Amino acid sequence: MRIGIVGATGAVGKELLSVLEKRNFPVSELRLYASARSAGKSLKFRGKEVNIEALPETPLPVDVVLASAGGAISKQYAPIWAKQSVVIDNSSAFRYDPGVPLIVPEINAHAIQGHKNIIANPNCTTAILVMALYPLHKAFGAKRVIVSTYQSSSGAGASGMEELLHGTRQYLAGQPVEHKTFAYPLPFNVIPHIDAFQENGYTKEEMKVLWETQKIMGDTQIRVSCTAVRVPTLRVHSEAVTVEFERPISPEAAREVLQGAPGVDLVDDPANKRYPLPLTATGKFNVEVGRIRKSLVFDNGLDFFVAGDQLLKGAALNAVQIAELLQKPVAG
Amino acid sequence: MRIGIVGATGAVGKELLSVLEKRNFPVSELRLYASARSAGKSLKFRGKEVNIEALPETPLPVDVVLASAGGAISKQYAPIWAKQSVVIDNSSAFRYDPGVPLIVPEINAHAIQGHKNIIANPNCTTAILVMALYPLHKAFGAKRVIVSTYQSSSGAGASGMEELLHGTRQYLAGQPVEHKTFAYPLPFNVIPHIDAFQENGYTKEEMKVLWETQKIMGDTQIRVSCTAVRVPTLRVHSEAVTVEFERPISPEAAREVLQGAPGVDLVDDPANKRYPLPLTATGKFNVEVGRIRKSLVFDNGLDFFVAGDQLLKGAALNAVQIAELLQKPVAG
Repeated sequence: MRIGIVGATGAVGKELLSVLEKRNFPVSELRLYASARSAGKSLKFRGKEVNIEALPETPLPVDVVLASAGGAISKQYAPIWAKQSVVIDNSSAFRYDPGVPLIVPEINAHAIQGHKNIIANPNCTTAILVMALYPLHKAFGAKRVIVSTYQSSSGAGASGMEELLHGTRQYLAGQPVEHKTFAYPLPFNVIPHIDAFQENGYTKEEMKVLWETQKIMGDTQIRVSCTAVRVPTLRVHSEAVTVEFERPISPEAAREVLQGAPGVDLVDDPANKRYPLPLTATGKFNVEVGRIRKSLVFDNGLDFFVAGDQLLKGAALNAVQIAELLQKPVAG
Repeated sequence: MRIGIVGATGAVGKELLSVLEKRNFPVSELRLYASARSAGKSLKFRGKEVNIEALPETPLPVDVVLASAGGAISKQYAPIWAKQSVVIDNSSAFRYDPGVPLIVPEINAHAIQGHKNIIANPNCTTAILVMALYPLHKAFGAKRVIVSTYQSSSGAGASGMEELLHGTRQYLAGQPVEHKTFAYPLPFNVIPHIDAFQENGYTKEEMKVLWETQKIMGDTQIRVSCTAVRVPTLRVHSEAVTVEFERPISPEAAREVLQGAPGVDLVDDPANKRYPLPLTATGKFNVEVGRIRKSLVFDNGLDFFVAGDQLLKGAALNAVQIAELLQKPVAG
């Protein structure tokens, strides 16, 4: 398969190269695209240097485009790329288009059928949430979901990570802390503001969690309320989740379901200080789930905590998994 | 009033000195107590050096003891101090004793009546939560409360703050990050583990929020579920809160109530990037409340975000406010 990566030098772009390698994805040819600024440089893939090209305004000579250069680029170019390639788009530009499948392979691989050469990769926070939520939903019927997030700086790309590290150094040196990617200095702070505010007072990031959870799980009845908060970590989004279910649920029954769920690591042994952490979830393909306990507010309710590497399951890994789906006949 | 501070060199102890100064509390004599290690040193109060004494095993020659040296010290000595002084105790040792009032002066000042010389100061997370929750509860009747916290390192005292700063320097220098106060390294991490795990899977910190919210608000029917998470900040606990109310509520009506609530700063103008932040709540007596919006999971529900300096309203300020109550006749 000829693969093109758009946004190859970004935080997700670099992870895409690494995930294609680690999963032995059959790449017959690799083309890397980035802004004109990076053209002429190169990145290593399977031991060879691959040149970075400036993005042309034409279709790309590849079978699959993995696009991760932001919504504006995708909106403008994906329809052009889609003439000759299947586009797996990491931006939010097409996610809510009813004609565009929004895929988490462990959950709704079947929805890829009938795609029109654009397939959307979900928002990172949502992808991590549904990995734990969907198996429980299938078994017990989720009705209401309340999510509070602890999102890392790299959710805003490589520049977010650099701004946090640079700003932390400035803080420790007693200097004023510069910021540009984030609305306020992030070092030793938390910021309840990710993406643009909507008319209803929620941010777009928070609304994405509702919209995308409903679309991926194929259930428009489920109610989801999210508070999205940026915290001074480098990688991994963590989420505190409270769910009310239709049917009775116990922590034991939930653990049994999650133990067998694909892409999930059950990390739930508080007595031995085992619970999900950015520290341990960094670089991991699977999403960590733990702190599972009976909700104190709902009779059929559960509280739990998840931590997932948002550059992997929340972006690069999930995109490569979608590309893998394209290689095989999809089960009905 | 003769005031004694036990635990004078700790993070809360230092804030107690500063709050007594800022509120012009009528201190006729000040005695400072700490561990033997600190005895002989001194701290400045109103421009004068005050000697630090080792804690004796006897009653203290003061009218009010402000105790902030941990639960074990309070459990052992508070009954002795209470023979001659009123003890305002910042630990959890007596909070759940039905004979001990647990006081947030803006909310249940009346409950101080009939105290038996021990008055409990609430858990920091709870104190900050109820400042916003109680006025809304009075107006609309809170039924279910879901709280996810973003708690700062100084919630674990001065050593927590030092461990975070030291560890961050180690991380940036590429060295292994030491940790002792926290279960895992806190720099660039979040840890969903504060205080000891209970049999039901919640931590004691999380259960305190339920127990103390019910006791302070005088309502044992209200259901509260909390996830308590340590984040790499220095001061201020932030909390994402979802509440279901008995009666219909709108963000506008909630803002009107909170605008007039004592001890609350309404910081809720997302269009101008105004919302609660550790950065702005640090050192502030009032608790910041914002991000107020209609819940997407409850018909009569509200989501909001609070940030309060847990060394102040969550500890030192509230303790001094309780001491102020002792000076004046309490309204029935």
